[in-house]
Amino acid sequence: MISLESNSVDLQTRLEAAFSSSLPLSLATEPHLSGALWQTLGRPGSLVRARMVYEIARAHNLPEGRSINLAVAIEYFHTASLLFDDLPCMDDASERRGEPCVHQVHGEAAAVLAALGLVNRAYALLWRGLVGSPADAQARATAYTERCLGVYGLLNGQSEDLHYRQLPAARQSPQKVATGKTVSLIRLSLVLPAILGGAGASEVCWLERLAAFWGLSYQILDDLKDVFQQPAQTGKTAARDELLQRPNTALVMGPDQSLLRLERLLNLADRVLDRLVARLPDLSFLEELRRRFRQEIIGIKASQPSRI
Amino acid sequence: MISLESNSVDLQTRLEAAFSSSLPLSLATEPHLSGALWQTLGRPGSLVRARMVYEIARAHNLPEGRSINLAVAIEYFHTASLLFDDLPCMDDASERRGEPCVHQVHGEAAAVLAALGLVNRAYALLWRGLVGSPADAQARATAYTERCLGVYGLLNGQSEDLHYRQLPAARQSPQKVATGKTVSLIRLSLVLPAILGGAGASEVCWLERLAAFWGLSYQILDDLKDVFQQPAQTGKTAARDELLQRPNTALVMGPDQSLLRLERLLNLADRVLDRLVARLPDLSFLEELRRRFRQEIIGIKASQPSRI
Repeated sequence: MISLESNSVDLQTRLEAAFSSSLPLSLATEPHLSGALWQTLGRPGSLVRARMVYEIARAHNLPEGRSINLAVAIEYFHTASLLFDDLPCMDDASERRGEPCVHQVHGEAAAVLAALGLVNRAYALLWRGLVGSPADAQARATAYTERCLGVYGLLNGQSEDLHYRQLPAARQSPQKVATGKTVSLIRLSLVLPAILGGAGASEVCWLERLAAFWGLSYQILDDLKDVFQQPAQTGKTAARDELLQRPNTALVMGPDQSLLRLERLLNLADRVLDRLVARLPDLSFLEELRRRFRQEIIGIKASQPSRI
Repeated sequence: MISLESNSVDLQTRLEAAFSSSLPLSLATEPHLSGALWQTLGRPGSLVRARMVYEIARAHNLPEGRSINLAVAIEYFHTASLLFDDLPCMDDASERRGEPCVHQVHGEAAAVLAALGLVNRAYALLWRGLVGSPADAQARATAYTERCLGVYGLLNGQSEDLHYRQLPAARQSPQKVATGKTVSLIRLSLVLPAILGGAGASEVCWLERLAAFWGLSYQILDDLKDVFQQPAQTGKTAARDELLQRPNTALVMGPDQSLLRLERLLNLADRVLDRLVARLPDLSFLEELRRRFRQEIIGIKASQPSRI
């Protein structure tokens, strides 16, 4: 147990270093753009997606270098999505990871160009992470990436989130929006390295279910935080969803029902996880992520009474 | 000659069809996002970059399907860059290709998400266009793409363009900015298919020179149009550079000197082109692009006296 945790600390440090150093800037980079990138690369965040990618890649015997490349690629996609989400034309946020948003410090254009720089670099790292897998796995992996990130996945989810009140009634469900906006990238994090590592159809199917249950749980947690926590606790702008008329399970169902749904989703995730780990013991690191979720819920419950 | 021109018309039609149909939208796409994409995909523009990519790919015997994928990929990158450039935080343009900009019709967020959809799809098409070339050519091609499009190429050029007056004096040259902003994508269009088609180092070197001469010529033409032509002639917002303090050769050197420099660059390009075509007659289609440049200059000269 101790060695597992010390490995885990070591891995976090290595992933943080890889995150911060995988987009080297030159002195010729225009100062607003390099400033925006410095700020972004200097604050890696939790790296939970990078952790998933790396561990699953290694559990399938992908080499260290490819696993790191894939992990940083997915984390750069995620980070770029945060830069775009925070823009005035999207969530108009003022705070992220405990400091003013990139667009507030370096300007909107620099935030957009920095995000595009991360996307461009992410595809380059992704490509390097692919090389070495069989051709059919590479083809499946790139098609999967496109579907999760593009206009059928993440981008559509973000657009539905922004225009939630104008959606057809049948689409006005926080869960449906979260499937595009939040589940897509968690699914990619879990499934991409598995495909490249030669996982069979049933493992991919279980990982997709785990991604759905965890992704939806994560969104409910985020919704609860938006309603009940202060920026000092979350490091980002609070109480945006009601103001901006965005989908928010806590606002639609109330906190008690939201917590019940969250528990139900996490129980479903636990059952999938147990099956996965029983078949593939190398995936047992995922249990640490399960513990993190449980801790987050304790934190939410503790912060809730002060507001309602 | 007649058959060449009819082939050329036919190719233009096929490229337009590929441009408009290579990002299929579903009924589930959020209406602002699908509206932004419909508007963009319905107006292919000149497709000059797609044409370069396709012809060079075919001259190097890449199959038809891969050549079209590569051509549309590069054109989607270019189109995405226009959507970003037109945003209020960049050029704040109101008109593009003869109609209101996408962000004015469908909102800024939809323009950003549509542009990201094009980028995501472009990488998927690019990947399909790579498959079949030797592994080392694929690795060189992806590294080349990253360099041209990323923070060392196009993105840095755009950032320098936006913050031109704040650049160090040594970087305040319209030509240096244009090398990042404009030459990068023309270079990618000429060199990427050549690398994938097995071109040798000297051919790549000649194509890079041609890209530099043509890219800089193209930027001077664009600068002259910005100063001397009306939206009715160019289909986009005019006289932006002076207002926004952007680099513009025509403003720095005056129209006569700019036209002289343009002539000099095109003469240099002609010499490179003659050498290329002498060695590789299959590249003779590039001569048609040379003719287009010459026609553009005649158009500029005709519009100039009315303004100065």
